[in-house]
Amino acid sequence: MNGNPQLNRNGELQHLLTLEGLPRANIEHILDTAESFVSIAEREVKKVPLLRGKSIFNLFFENSTRTRTTFEIAAKRLSADVINLNIGASSTSKGETVLDTIDNLSAMLADMFVVRHAQSGAAHMIAAHLNATARPYIHVINAGDGRHAHPTQGLLDLFTIRHYKKEFSQLTVAIVGDVLHSRVARSLIHGLTTLGTPEVRVVGPNTLIPAAAANLGVRVFNDMQEGVRNCDVVVMLRLQNERMRGALLPSAGEFFKHYGLTEEKLALAKSDAIVMHPGPMNRGVEIDSPVADGKHSVILPQVTFGIAVRMAVMGILAGS
Amino acid sequence: MNGNPQLNRNGELQHLLTLEGLPRANIEHILDTAESFVSIAEREVKKVPLLRGKSIFNLFFENSTRTRTTFEIAAKRLSADVINLNIGASSTSKGETVLDTIDNLSAMLADMFVVRHAQSGAAHMIAAHLNATARPYIHVINAGDGRHAHPTQGLLDLFTIRHYKKEFSQLTVAIVGDVLHSRVARSLIHGLTTLGTPEVRVVGPNTLIPAAAANLGVRVFNDMQEGVRNCDVVVMLRLQNERMRGALLPSAGEFFKHYGLTEEKLALAKSDAIVMHPGPMNRGVEIDSPVADGKHSVILPQVTFGIAVRMAVMGILAGS
Amino acid sequence: MNGNPQLNRNGELQHLLTLEGLPRANIEHILDTAESFVSIAEREVKKVPLLRGKSIFNLFFENSTRTRTTFEIAAKRLSADVINLNIGASSTSKGETVLDTIDNLSAMLADMFVVRHAQSGAAHMIAAHLNATARPYIHVINAGDGRHAHPTQGLLDLFTIRHYKKEFSQLTVAIVGDVLHSRVARSLIHGLTTLGTPEVRVVGPNTLIPAAAANLGVRVFNDMQEGVRNCDVVVMLRLQNERMRGALLPSAGEFFKHYGLTEEKLALAKSDAIVMHPGPMNRGVEIDSPVADGKHSVILPQVTFGIAVRMAVMGILAGS
Repeated sequence: MNGNPQLNRNGELQHLLTLEGLPRANIEHILDTAESFVSIAEREVKKVPLLRGKSIFNLFFENSTRTRTTFEIAAKRLSADVINLNIGASSTSKGETVLDTIDNLSAMLADMFVVRHAQSGAAHMIAAHLNATARPYIHVINAGDGRHAHPTQGLLDLFTIRHYKKEFSQLTVAIVGDVLHSRVARSLIHGLTTLGTPEVRVVGPNTLIPAAAANLGVRVFNDMQEGVRNCDVVVMLRLQNERMRGALLPSAGEFFKHYGLTEEKLALAKSDAIVMHPGPMNRGVEIDSPVADGKHSVILPQVTFGIAVRMAVMGILAGS
Repeated sequence: MNGNPQLNRNGELQHLLTLEGLPRANIEHILDTAESFVSIAEREVKKVPLLRGKSIFNLFFENSTRTRTTFEIAAKRLSADVINLNIGASSTSKGETVLDTIDNLSAMLADMFVVRHAQSGAAHMIAAHLNATARPYIHVINAGDGRHAHPTQGLLDLFTIRHYKKEFSQLTVAIVGDVLHSRVARSLIHGLTTLGTPEVRVVGPNTLIPAAAANLGVRVFNDMQEGVRNCDVVVMLRLQNERMRGALLPSAGEFFKHYGLTEEKLALAKSDAIVMHPGPMNRGVEIDSPVADGKHSVILPQVTFGIAVRMAVMGILAGS
Repeated sequence: MNGNPQLNRNGELQHLLTLEGLPRANIEHILDTAESFVSIAEREVKKVPLLRGKSIFNLFFENSTRTRTTFEIAAKRLSADVINLNIGASSTSKGETVLDTIDNLSAMLADMFVVRHAQSGAAHMIAAHLNATARPYIHVINAGDGRHAHPTQGLLDLFTIRHYKKEFSQLTVAIVGDVLHSRVARSLIHGLTTLGTPEVRVVGPNTLIPAAAANLGVRVFNDMQEGVRNCDVVVMLRLQNERMRGALLPSAGEFFKHYGLTEEKLALAKSDAIVMHPGPMNRGVEIDSPVADGKHSVILPQVTFGIAVRMAVMGILAGS
């Protein structure tokens, strides 16, 4: 193993933990592979035997039916056996450590773990443990860890942008809303930077912008109008309900007035701009329904591409 | 689309939402198709590849392990990929609308939704939305909506009756108990009427008989002895526990005395009468154990036929 | 059927309910069959078509994600269709009896039930019901009933011991900790005795040793040092948290001091002794981490063998 725990010594993807530091070649390989899985939609039988006989464990220490479903579908379309474990209800509640759980499931001949955890670094810790114990044939996919990373979401966002805009080298991308708490934003920013996007903007009130935003190589806008002006891509982030109830924001209505994406604000972006959202949407909070359902919206194609991207990641890992 | 949202312009089944208004030819086509799936019971490998590569989502907004299981088994025997979603625990709790959930799952290339919902009309609303957005290749099966309809239960009841009685044109069928709150009763009445059953009776106290019963083309009996007399088929309905605790009924014991099916009361029906129940049974409340387990009972064959009927509906929808 | 409800009249395994009274030939047949499934670990495709088209129901009346997972994996690697039923959330809560649930699932053409229940005898009752109603083609596996039996755990323990020690005829085996409440201990003791193990010891405070221990053919030790001295195999039992909070034990720390397996205590056993634990472990309570992770530990191989043993049991039952 080298310094990057997600690559093996040949530079191949061993785990998918974060887009931070993931080389451009690996990202592009995933996106290219995903292309080949998009066409599966048109087939009569939406299934390939690539992972037949493999055992994939969805380890959700934090509940997320939506994300779990996308991985479950992706794995089943690759013909894998999928086992869903809601770990809250399981051995950890009996005092077993997370690594003991991993060792046990590995002893059951697991091939892949899809890990969702409320704590940043959980998937890294599991991957490092597997690497340290010489089990390179078991793979970890980070399905979201705390505020840290959500790399498959970042990859599907990149896939979507590439699909509609072809090249990253001329793009202006605005990421709007609760950037501070968003692993989606963090993963996307790393990916966009690696792929050579010249201008990435984060837009929101200072209370929702990370203090270290400048270090990420992005431009910060507090004014939404300025932030979306002349953009090619507008990515709206989900506003967690708990933020609205907390001290960070005056109210959902106030947020919508300043940062909700309306047709009026969208008109400031380029005429062929695309609008993205990781879902689930709060209509009338961060996005207005006519925009969510309008002709600039590529929110549902994101979901479709998300399955193809997850199939690609699983396929690449299983082949490494 | 025409006026009946569950049929396409060729009159083929596009969704299965209700037996009300479903033409006789469609009902008979389902029952005939189900015949061919009954024989699967005798095979060594109880599986056919009809829905291989199809993604079927069990969307249960209301919990029902039993009904969910029957659809899951039916889908797996057709080789489909099945994804179970307990929607209470999912995105709707995050403020996403039901139709946004449907759009998202459709974007994941869902082929079929099996929908259970506490509110009447939920499956209709979803089907109408899919029709309105030109996605005729995605199908909806209503697995029970509020007090409204439970068409696959109605169909398996019809299948069972046809299996044992061959013809509907001479039959007297009594449906006994809590007709007021029963989607099972409502679906069965529509089906029996469409198939030409000359006499359908509903039997129970006035508090459990819908005021509009007469409009359904049935005869109302408050006296159980009169109601089951000379019947060919006696369908006992499940008495929901919550009714017994409520104001509608004096007590479970009192209900059993008047409307519980005992061998004594059953003796008033024809000597070859069959006894049905949708399950789960409350033994000693609506049905006495010697009857439930007796030679007139076809309650367990109903369950077996229910799998075949659900396979038939899924197979017909996927082929349309 | 003969007196042993788990064997058919030819002496073949019809259900797996307990190791008590299970003939040596049956146990050895299971262990031999499991050998052939261990090698599946080395295959590219970890799947055989032995149970294709079979429907296996995991009926967990008591929650156990870990045990349920091992059966689910075993069944999927045999290509069966697996349906997980958390029965707490299902019909029993609606007043349906357990046997009505069984009859219903049997009517759905179930081939096998894997039953976990908090009450001793639950799996027996279900098997007896199926036998009494002439359904020998439906099989029951006891996945743990109350304090009574956990036969697949006992079998995987036997498999592990045989794997490392080859013969039982010279062995001394110590089972340490909460023997009183342990179905794992009970099953293992029966198995060891049947296979001719000359010395089986149970080690623990009197409050955690069954009064009838002597009847089981074991030697009782209250002193851990004496109990593990010269042993070939040390089996540590999980200490349930609820015991520690109850009146049976002073504290977890006190228990560890006297009965926790440390390297120091393990040094009293034979130099090639193996250490086993059914999991999940309480590190620092019944077992010290250096022992759990040390060179004598075969705790993770137990898990791997457990899958093979469950595949063997399922395969044998389905073939009977």
